Amino acid sequence: MAVYTEVGDQELTAFIAGYAIGDVLSCKGIAEGVENTNYLLHTQGGHYILTLYEKRVALQDLPFFLGLVKHLAAKGVRCPVPVAARDGAVLGTLSGRPAAIVTFLEGMWVRRPAPRHCRALGEAMANLHLAGADFAMSRENRLSVNSWRGLLQSIGPRANEVMPGLYDELDRDIADIERHWPSELPTGIIHGDLFPDNVFFLGDNFSGIIDFYFACSEVLALDLAICLNAWCFEPDNSFNVTKARAMLGAYQRQRSLSQAEFEALPWLARGAALRFLLTRLFDWLNPPAQALVNPHDPLEYVHKLRFHRGVSSAQEYGLDR
Amino acid sequence: MAVYTEVGDQELTAFIAGYAIGDVLSCKGIAEGVENTNYLLHTQGGHYILTLYEKRVALQDLPFFLGLVKHLAAKGVRCPVPVAARDGAVLGTLSGRPAAIVTFLEGMWVRRPAPRHCRALGEAMANLHLAGADFAMSRENRLSVNSWRGLLQSIGPRANEVMPGLYDELDRDIADIERHWPSELPTGIIHGDLFPDNVFFLGDNFSGIIDFYFACSEVLALDLAICLNAWCFEPDNSFNVTKARAMLGAYQRQRSLSQAEFEALPWLARGAALRFLLTRLFDWLNPPAQALVNPHDPLEYVHKLRFHRGVSSAQEYGLDR
Repeated sequence: MAVYTEVGDQELTAFIAGYAIGDVLSCKGIAEGVENTNYLLHTQGGHYILTLYEKRVALQDLPFFLGLVKHLAAKGVRCPVPVAARDGAVLGTLSGRPAAIVTFLEGMWVRRPAPRHCRALGEAMANLHLAGADFAMSRENRLSVNSWRGLLQSIGPRANEVMPGLYDELDRDIADIERHWPSELPTGIIHGDLFPDNVFFLGDNFSGIIDFYFACSEVLALDLAICLNAWCFEPDNSFNVTKARAMLGAYQRQRSLSQAEFEALPWLARGAALRFLLTRLFDWLNPPAQALVNPHDPLEYVHKLRFHRGVSSAQEYGLDR
Repeated sequence: MAVYTEVGDQELTAFIAGYAIGDVLSCKGIAEGVENTNYLLHTQGGHYILTLYEKRVALQDLPFFLGLVKHLAAKGVRCPVPVAARDGAVLGTLSGRPAAIVTFLEGMWVRRPAPRHCRALGEAMANLHLAGADFAMSRENRLSVNSWRGLLQSIGPRANEVMPGLYDELDRDIADIERHWPSELPTGIIHGDLFPDNVFFLGDNFSGIIDFYFACSEVLALDLAICLNAWCFEPDNSFNVTKARAMLGAYQRQRSLSQAEFEALPWLARGAALRFLLTRLFDWLNPPAQALVNPHDPLEYVHKLRFHRGVSSAQEYGLDR
């Protein structure tokens, strides 16, 4: 099996004995998660996700991630939460990797989000931002605006293999965005990767958010900018303002955007498109050897980046002032 | 995701509506199964495996496979069974593929089988053979002794990339085995792929058998020969006669071997080693482009083949006469 890290039956049985969740009934590697190895674990106590943290996740970040979801869940955000072992620890070691057991979140991700899903997303995102306000830990965004120039340089002229002239185009974009990047906006804990596959629904009802491994302390409106890119474009790369309006409106009903956030949104959206374009480009040109997940096509984000380049006001996203 | 065939939420919901198993609660692609795409499906009705049959499985064989497990389960063999849709069909179409829902079998496969596991295997295998005796359908073994010469020829001299001289060594083996292959042995339905990862245990208790996609009408003792190879060698390729004796003894308590089967066992074991060596060689040299599963190292079976070449009587496998 090409699950990153294989777990044997005996080592699993020994590991699970450290938890008060009964005996193992089944454990199947699931084909999800770019950064980690995930197993769907069934014990006498219920269903769980068993995660083994691979090298792309820094060990020192794990207390932040596990502490964050625990904090958010206590405030009513629906997300998987770590299960403590009998000794109270939420992080153990299995097959030579840091490992945690988290609760299983029912739901499916929506392949073609409709405006009603974008509305539910906006509300959930605002609630996540509000619930994170008093979380005591912080984590730097390693993929912030300050990292993009270095990321482009590490990709180098091979960017042009994906599209001729792309390196120079992105070089100019970075200069532009760096110059206009907003400062002084409200900050807090953002999810940082709120793509449709991280937001679960049961039928049309929002059921929860997963995969907090890009969560960090950042400008809150950057999550909105990421979602404008990830949820509000059609497969033909056209922008669907109805979806954007539904998402932004629902967000604002929980947490109003300031004038500064309103004005910054086009730059944030352009920056968010650039950030995902850069990491997709990198992964496309340097695919991990054993990945279960196919790299995403970076070209999709070239179109999105160009779209935002032509936006002069957040009103064009359907945001009323 | 590198699951062979992706299933969207809407098409899944529509498909599941055809079954009386309630609404979908979750559906995760699992990193198992060489031949098919498998999802772990949770609905209000329980847990199931949703299988989409990929091109390596012939459509015309599916009624045999699905009918067989239904027949075996009705006779008390523990195995996943197909769930019938509201219209009575056990085979439908999803994402352009033939698809079936089968019951979920709890259990884990044993990475390092002990003699007690081999004993349980022997008993379960005999019960499977007895239960299959009155199954009305039949299926030819496409990987029978008659296919091996053609398989080696399609691999060709590239076999020597894996080990110098291997092509000629296997060519001689095939000639030898073809000459001595037993005829007139008791036949019936064999599983054909009873490797440890297809036999589940809960703790030390046998819980069931999965993956019948190599089942066929064959010499019954060939299943024993396959398991001598798959269960009774140690990681250092030494043969563990205690495990073999446990398996063969438990089998015989349910179904006695005839004198002819006893005498044929060394040739069957050698043929079984050759059959898996050939398919592993082929897959090693021609890995499927999108496989979730790493090819198995063929060299392991070179050692096993050579071991059986030196066996002159089934007594050397711990089988008493």
